Amino acid sequence: MELLKKMCEIHAPAGEELAMKEFLLNYINDNQSNWKVQPILHHGHGFQDNLILVFGKPRTAIFAHLDSIGFTVKYNNEIVKIGGPVTTKGIVLVGTDSIGKIEGKIVKKDSKMYIDFEREIDRGTSLTFKVNFRDTDNFVQSCYMDNRLGAWNCLEVAKTLENGIIVFSSWEEHGGGTVGYLGKFIQEKYGVMQALISDITWVTDGVQHGKGCAISLRDSGLPRKSYVNRIVEIAKQNNIPFQLEVEDAGGSDGNGLQKSDYPWDWCFVGAPEDNVHSPDEKVHKADIKSMVALYSELMKEL
Amino acid sequence: MELLKKMCEIHAPAGEELAMKEFLLNYINDNQSNWKVQPILHHGHGFQDNLILVFGKPRTAIFAHLDSIGFTVKYNNEIVKIGGPVTTKGIVLVGTDSIGKIEGKIVKKDSKMYIDFEREIDRGTSLTFKVNFRDTDNFVQSCYMDNRLGAWNCLEVAKTLENGIIVFSSWEEHGGGTVGYLGKFIQEKYGVMQALISDITWVTDGVQHGKGCAISLRDSGLPRKSYVNRIVEIAKQNNIPFQLEVEDAGGSDGNGLQKSDYPWDWCFVGAPEDNVHSPDEKVHKADIKSMVALYSELMKEL
Amino acid sequence: MELLKKMCEIHAPAGEELAMKEFLLNYINDNQSNWKVQPILHHGHGFQDNLILVFGKPRTAIFAHLDSIGFTVKYNNEIVKIGGPVTTKGIVLVGTDSIGKIEGKIVKKDSKMYIDFEREIDRGTSLTFKVNFRDTDNFVQSCYMDNRLGAWNCLEVAKTLENGIIVFSSWEEHGGGTVGYLGKFIQEKYGVMQALISDITWVTDGVQHGKGCAISLRDSGLPRKSYVNRIVEIAKQNNIPFQLEVEDAGGSDGNGLQKSDYPWDWCFVGAPEDNVHSPDEKVHKADIKSMVALYSELMKEL
Repeated sequence: MELLKKMCEIHAPAGEELAMKEFLLNYINDNQSNWKVQPILHHGHGFQDNLILVFGKPRTAIFAHLDSIGFTVKYNNEIVKIGGPVTTKGIVLVGTDSIGKIEGKIVKKDSKMYIDFEREIDRGTSLTFKVNFRDTDNFVQSCYMDNRLGAWNCLEVAKTLENGIIVFSSWEEHGGGTVGYLGKFIQEKYGVMQALISDITWVTDGVQHGKGCAISLRDSGLPRKSYVNRIVEIAKQNNIPFQLEVEDAGGSDGNGLQKSDYPWDWCFVGAPEDNVHSPDEKVHKADIKSMVALYSELMKEL
Repeated sequence: MELLKKMCEIHAPAGEELAMKEFLLNYINDNQSNWKVQPILHHGHGFQDNLILVFGKPRTAIFAHLDSIGFTVKYNNEIVKIGGPVTTKGIVLVGTDSIGKIEGKIVKKDSKMYIDFEREIDRGTSLTFKVNFRDTDNFVQSCYMDNRLGAWNCLEVAKTLENGIIVFSSWEEHGGGTVGYLGKFIQEKYGVMQALISDITWVTDGVQHGKGCAISLRDSGLPRKSYVNRIVEIAKQNNIPFQLEVEDAGGSDGNGLQKSDYPWDWCFVGAPEDNVHSPDEKVHKADIKSMVALYSELMKEL
Repeated sequence: MELLKKMCEIHAPAGEELAMKEFLLNYINDNQSNWKVQPILHHGHGFQDNLILVFGKPRTAIFAHLDSIGFTVKYNNEIVKIGGPVTTKGIVLVGTDSIGKIEGKIVKKDSKMYIDFEREIDRGTSLTFKVNFRDTDNFVQSCYMDNRLGAWNCLEVAKTLENGIIVFSSWEEHGGGTVGYLGKFIQEKYGVMQALISDITWVTDGVQHGKGCAISLRDSGLPRKSYVNRIVEIAKQNNIPFQLEVEDAGGSDGNGLQKSDYPWDWCFVGAPEDNVHSPDEKVHKADIKSMVALYSELMKEL
């Protein structure tokens, strides 16, 4: 879990994904010689801070978002949300501005939120949760499992991937807006129209720790039933533990693909976590194992 | 009204439009020899479960959505909405899962909704209203007038259509996402930028039963005034009864076209119904007649 | 401020931008001989009522929306909103229908809004605030500074612009839907991916009258930090007065660009106003001066 820990520690809230992209480029550069297939990389001009890896003759694309939730500093150290973070009083935030490093607790006054810090912070400075990474026998726990774990899953799958695309996207937590053009590029250049969303979901009454990766039949978005059924069938035939999720809230890059001007079949497949969007996101290791195994099979059989 | 009755009875909530598409393909196959012009059909790979019919040299496209509202089964027979159905206690829902047929009433407990059924239903199973189709002298009444009647209108118009496109779309009731790429296909291949939305609207203070098909000047979406004015003018000149609608809520595939990356002029033109999104949607036959007549003229003159 | 006054007086709520476009075409025709560079104009078929000006070899596009907020007449002189106008009782609205000119005050009854007028107004008639343009030593004040001032800024910048694109867009106040395809055209034909949003923002605790044009680090939309940083740097280096804005509400054509299927870097740069979306929108002249100066530099250096 050392790699995952490093990824959780990178400051990359929505709008500032560059550091995550550079980390991945370095990692890929250092490790791809050990991968079964070396991918073609697409990034740079026209891709903003996103990154696409193409392996062999792809039929399916995995989408994993690089950005995290966080906060933006407004006036007089007031803070506003990036995405939907938990905002409990006392949570420790960190960041950097033109003067130097920042660390302070969330405080609330008159229905506004502030960071408690000794000087005025530059306007527009982004803050993220202070990382406390906990690795135990059965669980990993930290802020930003969502979605550094989804990105980490892609790097695991990449080791043996022969045919497929991996997309690292931006802004998923705050307004989206990249999977539309990334999907356009993929459909136009590679003719791929099948997507898997590598992201982290919620522990609920129906989806519990340790019972396997969740295959989401729907959330606020409603994927095409016939596509989702194929995914469930592959999971069953390979005896990979999984759980079926049905929600009517929450969303993912799947919604962004669906609303784009390109025909996408998509399905959210990801481990569930407790303490969603807090500094204490907690995932069971059996579910992580199931997630990697399921993606590896899906990329072969879809 | 036998054809309309059959269409209302097809189980095809958003995300599962395949059965409606197959019904239409069979119907077209059986009937198009009697049509004035035989259309080119576009469907299959890259079109998901949608269907496009192209007649002659088209200038205008009609969009009619195939999907209906409904419910998805969650955990322990809890149900969540597909689109915005009425959820009154006691409404009878039907569906099928891996074990067999399902029929049960909506019950409510602790602000959650359930279907009252004797066994646990498979997660992700979709349910729709049980159909009770009523055909009287002046009215037709059933669930899913919205939008099986809009699709039926297209089949009526198809009989004499010489130049134009008919698009059967998906997911309109829940998130949309197909008219973007269907519109893209149409603009790129046929250069058509004018749209009519064949869908069912509401009986209100300003739009009443039996006074003619509604031409919607706006709902939550705001079409270009100059285009809508042309439609009103054509209706007037042909002495077809119609009513002008002005609302600030509700939406249609028109909104999806407007938000796509293609320039669309669109207008919602459709009969009004009472008991919207319930098992008892009720439409006046004079308004249906007016709707077919108006579309036939619009496709000639626009 | 005579030109700005004329622009504020044009009736062009969202969906009816044609009059503004025609005004601009006439203005450009009459004045471009005095401009440093004569632009290529794109408009007409496939552009609805929008207008694009291309100067030299563009690297950056300015987007200014032509539409204003307003009201639509429903049934029995009830009115509903176009966009988000202030609706205080007594505000005077004007418009024209098939019978003639309309002028009347907003009245409210039973949680509905009406225009107080002596006869029934045609359904679908659009109404706008009656203009009271006030030009003092330090301020200009009128309805529709948002966004006639943003469009006026473009005309000022056009005088000396050598390389760049100016886009006049529609529907920004109500649902958007044009910058997607206008942006598509620009990226495909000119390869331009950098945008500035020429629009008017709010006077707040952090952004005040007379302290310079606002550079918005974020609102409900979150632009890419690295792009916004470049803009701030250019403003600093040229000693142009400016203010940094951070909000979590409000939006602009920037959101429309971000949600399109094209990769856009965008930033909202505009003077702040008091009495937002009312008949009394008030902007400081020093901020207008700063806005024009800042755009002129940005178009050179970005």
